[in-house]
Amino acid sequence: MKRLTKNSKILIVGLGLIGGSYAEALTDKGYEVGAVARRQESIDIALERGFIAHGVTEVTKEYISRFDIIVFSLYPEVFKSWIKEHQDCIKDGAILMDVTGVKRSVVYDIQSMLRDGVEFIGAHPMAGKEVYGVENSDKRIFMNANYIITPTDKNTYEAIEMCRELGRELGFKTVTCLSPEEHDEMIGFLSQLTHCIAVALMCCKDSKHLVDYTGDSFRDLTRIAKINDAMWSELFMLNKDKLLSQMELFSDKFTELKNSLRDGDTDKMREMMRISTERRKFFDK
Amino acid sequence: MKRLTKNSKILIVGLGLIGGSYAEALTDKGYEVGAVARRQESIDIALERGFIAHGVTEVTKEYISRFDIIVFSLYPEVFKSWIKEHQDCIKDGAILMDVTGVKRSVVYDIQSMLRDGVEFIGAHPMAGKEVYGVENSDKRIFMNANYIITPTDKNTYEAIEMCRELGRELGFKTVTCLSPEEHDEMIGFLSQLTHCIAVALMCCKDSKHLVDYTGDSFRDLTRIAKINDAMWSELFMLNKDKLLSQMELFSDKFTELKNSLRDGDTDKMREMMRISTERRKFFDK
Repeated sequence: MKRLTKNSKILIVGLGLIGGSYAEALTDKGYEVGAVARRQESIDIALERGFIAHGVTEVTKEYISRFDIIVFSLYPEVFKSWIKEHQDCIKDGAILMDVTGVKRSVVYDIQSMLRDGVEFIGAHPMAGKEVYGVENSDKRIFMNANYIITPTDKNTYEAIEMCRELGRELGFKTVTCLSPEEHDEMIGFLSQLTHCIAVALMCCKDSKHLVDYTGDSFRDLTRIAKINDAMWSELFMLNKDKLLSQMELFSDKFTELKNSLRDGDTDKMREMMRISTERRKFFDK
Repeated sequence: MKRLTKNSKILIVGLGLIGGSYAEALTDKGYEVGAVARRQESIDIALERGFIAHGVTEVTKEYISRFDIIVFSLYPEVFKSWIKEHQDCIKDGAILMDVTGVKRSVVYDIQSMLRDGVEFIGAHPMAGKEVYGVENSDKRIFMNANYIITPTDKNTYEAIEMCRELGRELGFKTVTCLSPEEHDEMIGFLSQLTHCIAVALMCCKDSKHLVDYTGDSFRDLTRIAKINDAMWSELFMLNKDKLLSQMELFSDKFTELKNSLRDGDTDKMREMMRISTERRKFFDK
């Protein structure tokens, strides 16, 4: 039976914020970690900071075939192209994982593209920062964070357990499994909808001068309004149906609250406030 | 000319989170601070923690007339009743201030109710926590925060300067002046709208089980969803016109983003994301 051991060699493909943070966490746990990056500069930074043992910018069979586990930290479409082009470089028995923020459109495609003997299991680390690049990587973002595995019926028990073990090794607080469909609905609500709200709020006014008047509530609600437009627009489009229905749901609730204010229905307003207060308590860290 | 000096005796009426934090900050700066509270327990806590020199639960002329500055930390309607009932207890020449989150409906009413010789100037400390009561008071909430003074043409230069000086003594980073109208529009957007968004978002789903899947974005957007329903519904109703128009503005922008997703208009989506990213940069602390 395949298992994650300290002899497992791990490759990170894509050395951005998340890829770099994975590399840091896993090197610190004693694994041999390699990397493929587009830019030599990213490799140099990761080497300098001790995140990786070695790394390349060119994909070769000689390098890729050394690894037992490969974690792809790439945009969804780039990930698919990589697999199409380079899957022959991967050794038999390797387990592939990812960090992508949408699952239905990634997991099934990748699994059906892969040759026999190589298994892909999807995972989504629910962690991040509003900055990018390996220079901002920090394994501490995984502390107290959630890690979601999205197995399908093509996945083996061993791969699911290895992915789970990797999540624990990375330092995540909670490791859970969801189907790709459940994941995308959940993430449409918890992550994508919240980013939509922050962006829309920030677009309301040219608000530079408001800095001198604001409290922390506006700051908190717009922290995630600093957003990588290329990545997030791709993620939104790949989860369009689920995200649209979450946006509708929010619009309806927001209108309900607005109408209660318009109608002077303070009972209704206070009821919504009490519900929100009760529910929010569960989210205190 | 009246000035704030270390001999100025300061009374806090209402020992909640904000009143208590004012008391703590001003006592630490060397002022003699007294308090009026509804419950003896609040006085006891404030005495025990060294926030006040003395305090009472009954309003008497003997006690109230000692003070040069009185800061009201009460709900708007309670504040007005207090003035109606007890303004005879206030000594001639005293300066009154408040901490209320809406200004038009408070400032003009109070100023027109007050007898000659007693001046009221409105102020709004843009600071708070999601917990209540003097037991949670903490003067550090004013650090790095904004303090807005809302003078009218009934206010003297001396009172405005005293209020400004008090803001600085409390430890606020930025002290500014706005008209009550400007204040209410600003706060409708920055504070009230953000609370409406958080409440509506939290009302969307019975989300207890989502704790194991969430990232920090949902947490950040809903921090203020824990809300004092009595206080906030009163504040919302007192700023209904301004808040409604800010809610409309946000709804329009949110719908714009939703439609761009529905139509697959990624250019539009990315444009909104770039605007939000640019604007948010100004709000980094």
